[in-house]
Amino acid sequence: MPISRLSILGVGLMGGSVALAARKHLNSCRVVGYGHHTDTLDQAVRIGAIHEATTDLAAAVKDADLVILAAPVGQLTQLLTSIFGHVKQGCVITDVGSTKRSIVAAAEQSLPSALRGRFVGSHPMAGSEHAGIAHARADLLEGALCILTPTPQTEPQSLDLVDRFWRAIQMHTIRISPEAHDRAVALASHLPHLLSVALLASQTDLSLDVAGRGLIDMTRLAAGEATVWRDIFLDNADNLRDALGLLRQKLDSLEAMLDPARAEELKDYLNSLATARHRMLDQRNLEP
Amino acid sequence: MPISRLSILGVGLMGGSVALAARKHLNSCRVVGYGHHTDTLDQAVRIGAIHEATTDLAAAVKDADLVILAAPVGQLTQLLTSIFGHVKQGCVITDVGSTKRSIVAAAEQSLPSALRGRFVGSHPMAGSEHAGIAHARADLLEGALCILTPTPQTEPQSLDLVDRFWRAIQMHTIRISPEAHDRAVALASHLPHLLSVALLASQTDLSLDVAGRGLIDMTRLAAGEATVWRDIFLDNADNLRDALGLLRQKLDSLEAMLDPARAEELKDYLNSLATARHRMLDQRNLEP
Repeated sequence: MPISRLSILGVGLMGGSVALAARKHLNSCRVVGYGHHTDTLDQAVRIGAIHEATTDLAAAVKDADLVILAAPVGQLTQLLTSIFGHVKQGCVITDVGSTKRSIVAAAEQSLPSALRGRFVGSHPMAGSEHAGIAHARADLLEGALCILTPTPQTEPQSLDLVDRFWRAIQMHTIRISPEAHDRAVALASHLPHLLSVALLASQTDLSLDVAGRGLIDMTRLAAGEATVWRDIFLDNADNLRDALGLLRQKLDSLEAMLDPARAEELKDYLNSLATARHRMLDQRNLEP
Repeated sequence: MPISRLSILGVGLMGGSVALAARKHLNSCRVVGYGHHTDTLDQAVRIGAIHEATTDLAAAVKDADLVILAAPVGQLTQLLTSIFGHVKQGCVITDVGSTKRSIVAAAEQSLPSALRGRFVGSHPMAGSEHAGIAHARADLLEGALCILTPTPQTEPQSLDLVDRFWRAIQMHTIRISPEAHDRAVALASHLPHLLSVALLASQTDLSLDVAGRGLIDMTRLAAGEATVWRDIFLDNADNLRDALGLLRQKLDSLEAMLDPARAEELKDYLNSLATARHRMLDQRNLEP
């Protein structure tokens, strides 16, 4: 089934970028944007991200073949349940949230029977420390990974439609469970963010004065939007605590190696991680 | 006093970049490079980093007005003491090491009376995860900060000469004690490096598969050369342990805020750090 009408609920950085990519790659698809702020919606129309804008949620989703929830993690469940009475039969719903267990569980508990199995959790692994439609761009998503988190309840055709959508806008897709997703992103995304914040918080006036590129890059994530990350951290707190526990073990091991008697071991350990970093870039075909 | 002859001991990434910058900005200065490997030295001559190359340490430093030790931290003291018998009267010596207490103390304990006060510790705050002359470039240093670490024993004219040298190649300079330097870089440089390593070591196969730009950037430092960083970590182990202690406190505070009842506090905390990051870039006139 082709997607002839796409509804994007929330046109900030991510919703706006999805919209731009859809306009670029899905020629015959009409893109509708919904939001609270008319100036944001106007800007989304002006930059060609959406064909039409509305602040009326029912109107936004009415004829949509695919609805994409692009609100912050803390507002997803509420947004999902408010569209049930307004979508057409056969509509498929997905989201772009950074955590997946809570929204997928909410969908499975609350979807009306006509929509059963038609919610598919998605997480495009792309972002920026800059928020808002002004920073949206199609190539934020192109070439990046989108994680789909189906469950046994997910309808195969809906999963297929959502998968085809992300691939149509040039993303790679993989499918894992919501639980495996939340554990993996706790390590790959939420822990790095927390570390970036803690590292910046540890600095002194003098250390900030002398800082070079290393600290600047390592604290980039700390510039992220506070409410967005607060919601993500709280929603994935259990996995984030586990990830922190693992990191603390690695820090303890490294600290124990700060001993001239263990110099060789420390060198080998650093070497093995440098090799792991090279392999990580190789697998992505990135320049070292 | 002008520097008409500059001797750079070690022509890797840092020595090579200093040489290229000196050639670019100090027209009448003859640059001599010393190293163990003739292929590295040949390459340094070929790319125009040095006028002449030698594997003979005595010949390398004989007529130099300024000698720059550009060897790894673990070899600096040994290199320093091996040139004493060969430098001319009036020669000034500096280095580019990432730690300053040990080399400055070694200089003050071992400099012969003719050279007393003529060693000035320097730390150009620039680098790369790539090592070797192939990655050397003048603009690695241009616009970056060079920290000078004089002590009461440092001769003012020597300090002035070294300061003028770094400014001549377009670096900014500041002067702090070796002790303050080592504490500050433990926070601004060595701790970020250790974190980058520990963060990468905490990943699983799946988390690496799903990782986006955040983890890629946060693990860049882990690609650094193992022996170089092993030596830095061991030489500054006490300060690095203190920095780690501070970081652990920040991580504990953040973990305690992973609680819906403290959502507002967590948001405010994240917000304050995002603001701190913006201020950090503003002070450097960098784009956010």
